[in-house]
Amino acid sequence: MPSYTAPTRDMQFILHDVLDVSEQDIPGYAELDRDFTSAVLEEAGKISSEVLSPLNPVGDTEGCVLENGVVRTPTGFKAAFDQVCEGGWTALDLPEEYGGQDMPYILGTAVAEMFSAANQAFTMYQGLTHAAASAILAHGTDQQKETYLSKMAACEWTGTMNLTEPHCGTDLGMMRTRAEPQDDGSFKITGQKIFISSGEHDMADNIIHLVLARIPGGPEGIKGVSLFIVPKFMVKEDGSLGDRNGVSCGKIEEKMGIHGNSTCVMNYDGATGYLLGQEHKGMRAMFTMMNEARIGAGMQGLAQAEIAYQNALTYARDRLQGRDVTGAKNPDGPADPLIVHPDIRRSLMDQKSFIEGARAFMLWGAELVDRSHRGNDAAAEGLISLMTPVIKGFLTDEGYDMTVLAQQVYGGHGYIEEWGMSQFTRDARIAMIYEGANGVQALDLVGRKLAQDSGKHVMAFFEVVKTFLKENEGDEALKKDFLDPLKAASKDLQAAATFFMQNGMKTPNAALAGSYDFMHLFGHVCLGLMWARMARAAHAALEAGTPDEAFYKTKLATGRFYMKRRLPATALHLARIESGAEPVMALDAEAF
Amino acid sequence: MPSYTAPTRDMQFILHDVLDVSEQDIPGYAELDRDFTSAVLEEAGKISSEVLSPLNPVGDTEGCVLENGVVRTPTGFKAAFDQVCEGGWTALDLPEEYGGQDMPYILGTAVAEMFSAANQAFTMYQGLTHAAASAILAHGTDQQKETYLSKMAACEWTGTMNLTEPHCGTDLGMMRTRAEPQDDGSFKITGQKIFISSGEHDMADNIIHLVLARIPGGPEGIKGVSLFIVPKFMVKEDGSLGDRNGVSCGKIEEKMGIHGNSTCVMNYDGATGYLLGQEHKGMRAMFTMMNEARIGAGMQGLAQAEIAYQNALTYARDRLQGRDVTGAKNPDGPADPLIVHPDIRRSLMDQKSFIEGARAFMLWGAELVDRSHRGNDAAAEGLISLMTPVIKGFLTDEGYDMTVLAQQVYGGHGYIEEWGMSQFTRDARIAMIYEGANGVQALDLVGRKLAQDSGKHVMAFFEVVKTFLKENEGDEALKKDFLDPLKAASKDLQAAATFFMQNGMKTPNAALAGSYDFMHLFGHVCLGLMWARMARAAHAALEAGTPDEAFYKTKLATGRFYMKRRLPATALHLARIESGAEPVMALDAEAF
Repeated sequence: MPSYTAPTRDMQFILHDVLDVSEQDIPGYAELDRDFTSAVLEEAGKISSEVLSPLNPVGDTEGCVLENGVVRTPTGFKAAFDQVCEGGWTALDLPEEYGGQDMPYILGTAVAEMFSAANQAFTMYQGLTHAAASAILAHGTDQQKETYLSKMAACEWTGTMNLTEPHCGTDLGMMRTRAEPQDDGSFKITGQKIFISSGEHDMADNIIHLVLARIPGGPEGIKGVSLFIVPKFMVKEDGSLGDRNGVSCGKIEEKMGIHGNSTCVMNYDGATGYLLGQEHKGMRAMFTMMNEARIGAGMQGLAQAEIAYQNALTYARDRLQGRDVTGAKNPDGPADPLIVHPDIRRSLMDQKSFIEGARAFMLWGAELVDRSHRGNDAAAEGLISLMTPVIKGFLTDEGYDMTVLAQQVYGGHGYIEEWGMSQFTRDARIAMIYEGANGVQALDLVGRKLAQDSGKHVMAFFEVVKTFLKENEGDEALKKDFLDPLKAASKDLQAAATFFMQNGMKTPNAALAGSYDFMHLFGHVCLGLMWARMARAAHAALEAGTPDEAFYKTKLATGRFYMKRRLPATALHLARIESGAEPVMALDAEAF
Repeated sequence: MPSYTAPTRDMQFILHDVLDVSEQDIPGYAELDRDFTSAVLEEAGKISSEVLSPLNPVGDTEGCVLENGVVRTPTGFKAAFDQVCEGGWTALDLPEEYGGQDMPYILGTAVAEMFSAANQAFTMYQGLTHAAASAILAHGTDQQKETYLSKMAACEWTGTMNLTEPHCGTDLGMMRTRAEPQDDGSFKITGQKIFISSGEHDMADNIIHLVLARIPGGPEGIKGVSLFIVPKFMVKEDGSLGDRNGVSCGKIEEKMGIHGNSTCVMNYDGATGYLLGQEHKGMRAMFTMMNEARIGAGMQGLAQAEIAYQNALTYARDRLQGRDVTGAKNPDGPADPLIVHPDIRRSLMDQKSFIEGARAFMLWGAELVDRSHRGNDAAAEGLISLMTPVIKGFLTDEGYDMTVLAQQVYGGHGYIEEWGMSQFTRDARIAMIYEGANGVQALDLVGRKLAQDSGKHVMAFFEVVKTFLKENEGDEALKKDFLDPLKAASKDLQAAATFFMQNGMKTPNAALAGSYDFMHLFGHVCLGLMWARMARAAHAALEAGTPDEAFYKTKLATGRFYMKRRLPATALHLARIESGAEPVMALDAEAF
């Protein structure tokens, strides 16, 4: 059975050596000193390894079962959920007045990576609750906050998000679910939603569905969509639960993975709902959830790559097969461990260098979220808004590929469910799809975010890179291995952006045909930047005579690998982008 | 439910327009005129679509069940197997004296692509039978051929290959299964084999296991391994079946995919076996099977990509979502079909251009097999031996990636088992692992094949490319879009080979660290070559005033896409290769 050890050392390095969190002028960050974050991370790591990880294969094997309208989650999930909720883990960054701990999002992100790595399907129950609570916090009335938030922070009630319908996912303007206004100010919601994660289950007393629906008479398309709170059980004035509302689970989907999470068809039959935010501005309110969920999905890509890598590494050290061509490393044994073989190294280094770069990128992104939300910093908000599709699309694509590499290390055993490696790939696969399929992320990035505010945000990104390069230009230790490759990669990204600017207005397809490559090109530059920042921090620690020399030297070697072997992918993406729309759009739809 | 339409038109194009098969001086090829191959392919296509494809999800859902030592295959498999056997499909290229049809391997390959695409798990029962029959044909005594081949050609008896043991897969020198010589010349086989595809089932009267085992007293390691024929039921002098032999299925593995094929743990408890080929030369005999199985695995990668693509294309045309940014294409409908979106096109073109290039590569490879076996052409044998790991590794890696792209087109529905797209990825995944994991293919390519006979075979490959370029150098229609990119890609491959030659002797790891990239670089050049050959054929047809203009124009556009957007990957692979061993091997095993 696979195991999981939380990467607390690496997280501490990023938080303190690289991002220097406790020195940042972001409200709440001063408290984030090394001891404090260490205590939180160690504790979260323990729960991940000891409670959540052992339940991961159980969830995969048993799945969720719908019987007589009730969904039974896998053995052990309820008890673990209670334990996680009691520990206050689900409300880490929610306000204290609702029972939260008001900690920065960055810490919640680090914890969420651990929980997700240990058990993605399980963690989704909390993750969606958190996202729904955030939307209510941002858009709810005082009364709505009062009614729902404390219960959700405590995970006594969980949350869901209901967007997709059978005939529309990405194109929500086609939505049919109706919300009929009632005399008491509430609405009657009628329609069917599909792919609702955690839609029905037996782990909480109530489920708070956030549902997109159309108020009759409103504008056509996406501009006529509103968001509603639809509780599974009606909530009485005193906060106690009343009658069952008119919402039910019609079916649990048979999926490729995340079997421990109940993915439901939800039927709304005149269910009572309450408007959240303004009429017809449902998408705006939903985007509070969506943005959080997108960053969360990116994190899942990283998380599955991490646990898959950990187990592949263990296997590569244990499994004896073949001999080192340069001379036996285990001469007394029947063969050398797999890890002596260069191609196994190549695979492990691909994984390791992606994971550590992605983690830094993720946590830098979380810092920007905090800077934006807690510090009301519009520039930070612009930057993270630009990078959200990159975090989502790039980290889930690459994260998935890494789980496939990790599975491959096991040879035939990787294909046998008993060994657990297949689950990591099957679970990781969903993150490329949900919260906006990655193609939609690329469209969001190139079609919307790139040109937003006259390209201000992407220019701010280039400024970040340029400033870093400038600040370190005299640093000979960094130059060849880190600064030069970063500069080259960033130049590719700029060339791609320029190509879009020059061609995109006249031929929108010239930009859109390259959108997916641009998302990956951007992702590589972000990881290149993070590796350069990490290398600087590692050099600084080594120069300061750190007692933990091995850690920092390993960090530098891993970074050099990324810059040498992964980052040059930017040139390929640029070549593809610069080939323009013609090769992609040459065929008529009928000609395929 | 997914559907399948055999790509007979494309196969005919490759066989006749590109490879010009009936004009080749290979025994048996003269018969392969257009009408004949068309008749065979149409008939095989019909069985694939109507019989095998509908059973594919059945096999996935039901799997195989072991009860009281008997394996029950999925509903309908036995009847379909009988139908396929009666049609003589499994013995297409076996000699007539054993009931085969003695057709060239190239035709069998085209048929196998169809069967595999329609139902990979099912087709493995025949595929392994064919591979085992080939080994007996090549290495068996007259009596062994007499005893087994007719029955196997008719699929009354099926075959298996038994290599892997729990503690060794790639490193077969560690094998423990013993073969004790008996007075009558037979052997008693004792040991455990794992991952035995089609190891036990209810579709045939007998199963002929080919088993690698060690004769006590023989040389250590791989040089002391011999190959044995171990029938499930003993075969009497008159060919009728006698007692059950001492071999049994201990367990069916729970796998990620190919659930319709029984992957068995096989226990040999003093089972009677007969030496096949020479003592201690088991690997040589097994490699007759292995080489065939490796090419077959590459074909499976292509085949799964094809069926996944076909269904993704249908979905992209049917599913209405969003609008074409350049103006509505379906103005009367609620939205435009997915296929209008450039990023969906990018995905479909990636798939289509890979598949058609891979199919041509595959069939060219099959031609070389025929030229080698039927024509006794040593140069052809050298070339196909060099390219076998490329066919296996590149086509299965890329084929898998294409199934993932195809699944992605479905959005959320791609993750739901009911839609069938998940099965294609799960089934395709195994082909990267079995018959030698792809890392082992890369090792075989760079560590063995490249330098074999002083690099003669790779030089022969470059000669093929150079000759093609030379023959067509005046062709302006081909130059920019096809010849120039092929030349550039081939130069990258040569540079990589040169790098290995200059560094590999001194630092073997410098070659091995780049082996995986080399395999992919080689694969791209092969597909680039095939696209250039296909483009030439398409131009010729258009100049000759073909009535099927649309087909050839589509072919050219698809080829241009490959050359522009896929082939430039060679530069990235070269950059990775030229970074050498240092980045890959920098860390001690303990430092990870």
